[in-house]
Amino acid sequence: MLDRSLGISQKIGLPVNLKRILVRDPNKPRDAVFPSGLITTNPEDVLADPSIQIVVEVIGGTEPAAQYLRDALSCGKHVVTANKEAMAKFGPELLDLARKNRVNLLFEASVGGGIPIVGSLMSQLLANDIQSIRGIINGTTNYILTRMAYEHTDFHQALAEAQQQGFAEADPTNDVEGFDAVYKLSILASLAFHQRVSPDDIYRQGITNLQPQDFRYAQELGYAIKSLAVATLERGDIRGRVYPALIPADHMLAKVDGVYNAVEVTGSLCGQVLFHGRGAGRGPTTSAVLGDLIDIGRRLHSNEPPVSVTESGHAFRVQPIDELETQYYLRLNIADQAGVLAQIAKILGDRRISIASVLQKDTFPEEQRAELVITTHPARDASVQEALRLVADLDVVNEVSNMLRIEG
Amino acid sequence: MLDRSLGISQKIGLPVNLKRILVRDPNKPRDAVFPSGLITTNPEDVLADPSIQIVVEVIGGTEPAAQYLRDALSCGKHVVTANKEAMAKFGPELLDLARKNRVNLLFEASVGGGIPIVGSLMSQLLANDIQSIRGIINGTTNYILTRMAYEHTDFHQALAEAQQQGFAEADPTNDVEGFDAVYKLSILASLAFHQRVSPDDIYRQGITNLQPQDFRYAQELGYAIKSLAVATLERGDIRGRVYPALIPADHMLAKVDGVYNAVEVTGSLCGQVLFHGRGAGRGPTTSAVLGDLIDIGRRLHSNEPPVSVTESGHAFRVQPIDELETQYYLRLNIADQAGVLAQIAKILGDRRISIASVLQKDTFPEEQRAELVITTHPARDASVQEALRLVADLDVVNEVSNMLRIEG
Repeated sequence: MLDRSLGISQKIGLPVNLKRILVRDPNKPRDAVFPSGLITTNPEDVLADPSIQIVVEVIGGTEPAAQYLRDALSCGKHVVTANKEAMAKFGPELLDLARKNRVNLLFEASVGGGIPIVGSLMSQLLANDIQSIRGIINGTTNYILTRMAYEHTDFHQALAEAQQQGFAEADPTNDVEGFDAVYKLSILASLAFHQRVSPDDIYRQGITNLQPQDFRYAQELGYAIKSLAVATLERGDIRGRVYPALIPADHMLAKVDGVYNAVEVTGSLCGQVLFHGRGAGRGPTTSAVLGDLIDIGRRLHSNEPPVSVTESGHAFRVQPIDELETQYYLRLNIADQAGVLAQIAKILGDRRISIASVLQKDTFPEEQRAELVITTHPARDASVQEALRLVADLDVVNEVSNMLRIEG
Repeated sequence: MLDRSLGISQKIGLPVNLKRILVRDPNKPRDAVFPSGLITTNPEDVLADPSIQIVVEVIGGTEPAAQYLRDALSCGKHVVTANKEAMAKFGPELLDLARKNRVNLLFEASVGGGIPIVGSLMSQLLANDIQSIRGIINGTTNYILTRMAYEHTDFHQALAEAQQQGFAEADPTNDVEGFDAVYKLSILASLAFHQRVSPDDIYRQGITNLQPQDFRYAQELGYAIKSLAVATLERGDIRGRVYPALIPADHMLAKVDGVYNAVEVTGSLCGQVLFHGRGAGRGPTTSAVLGDLIDIGRRLHSNEPPVSVTESGHAFRVQPIDELETQYYLRLNIADQAGVLAQIAKILGDRRISIASVLQKDTFPEEQRAELVITTHPARDASVQEALRLVADLDVVNEVSNMLRIEG
């Protein structure tokens, strides 16, 4: 920092004292050296100390973090949390506890790292009826997909690189299977639509099934492949989904590369607003946590009541993926012989699934097998799923290798 | 709006009553029909009415708007304004008046339309030391430059189209000469660096001098041309500038097209965060104005004191453009004969301006004239200006047709 930079205390207008640091293992090596007595392993040292007004929770996961959050709020402490899983699973309960105890519960760092998307939905964009949220909100998967797109590596190689770079954990399930993005989308959609959208209401598909040729075909067709988190509110129905999807190559979201995140909000007044930045890491998380801390500090300074999350009291229906209508990308491994396309086209046509484009690649001539890539016009998801079950049963089809949605 | 959408009152938690609408011409046709008695031409009907708590100013310009703003704040009314010129020119005075009268003065709509950049700098990103702001913050010029880049039209044709589309005013000076962007950058830089950056401190160059071939050459060299607003704080020096600049074609800002705006903030913690959206128009402006109105309404609801703009109390030095160090794009109209480049290169070299690339195009063979496009490595602005004066005096140089900065 510059010598002349403003400290947190100056930005708040009140001194800020770091009172306690609760850790699991006090002997773990740490970058910073703290005065003795600051580090503790006993949560009561925080919860029972009436001089502690604000608790910052950056433990992550639900246990014991969620219980600490409940306890801190119940003790009348303001809370800043970076915990997406706890906010997604227990957000309504925790926000209710905050309201009852007249304290703030802020969670900017839970989604999008340094991108101020949570606060914008809670404040600057609040006048809008939000129609949709579309985002790339998991840096790990976006790094992997970017490597697969530009370096033509396969999934496992790209994952190994992400792990080497520290962008993926040893057990990558949470990221590559879409759980992390589902938690984040649950938080964003709940704020945007003023009603709880539970993680269980969000369709989830991971990226482990993507093959290098999917990226080649997508590119040939004018698309990029991104793991998208999408929530829409249309005619009273909410839809939420996290899945790898094709997106037109000239769309801003298609250009979000590496560990960057982006969120596009479509509102009744603002139109499309896109936020782009680093979605994780020490700096961005610190930016978000300290931003919330300053916000609470200023309210303390002036005896302001807490920030409120607006709830509509309406219950929009949450639609399952089956009712989605979108375009599809299908990759099939077929017998390289005449009449195959006709059989497949008939199954699709019978279910009112209209073909938009067909690419046939004689990828495996020695085995008399070929790869067939079909894109469709908008169709109902349940119909496509049913059609693919029938297509997979055809003698001339070796495998339905992939099915991806196309986001317009 | 959806039937079940939340109204402003619900979002605030208090009823909102529209009390008065001050206009210049009560007989002007309007889209909305208001109850009789609401429209007035007398400012005292607003200022002297103690039941009016919040004033929204969307008049624009400095007179009479700035005086109305002063009067409203002095009367203890909260103010929401979309007035970039008044905020850029009189911001410190108006914010001071607001502080003294313990009222809010919010101005999200003054920059970037529906993009929540003002609030983000005042709140969510506040923990950062901001190092730079770079943006495309004038939709009119971006529309014109986008037409020139993609349709190869010249400036006057593109301007006429912008006027037909309602994206440019009959007198386009404010936009095409960069005044509008200078006002907006003054507001953003003042917020980012916690010190006043006056419009007079910002270097300004319009887009009227750009020719279709500049876009062709830029493209050939791997750049787009955008009217950029840039403010940086480096080693205690603030620099501000609004000018057409070359920017690498793969940079996010190069992909901001048409009337869209974008602002990229680089902070000590968050890294680069980019905001992209519609920078003007009825919807986006309404989104920003109502967002501020809800914010103030919530504070009224809970007797919260006003939002504060943090000032550092430090005075960073504001540097003139002469001290800028960047790369340059030079387009020269020269005599098509041997030895010309050597003469030009000598003048540049003597001033430690190192050439990065040279394109020579025999554009006017019948007249034995050619076009020479030179890009340089980073050099001092004053040196480049001096060199170009000497180059222009060479017998073999017909004209220095253009000089544009390259933003990395």
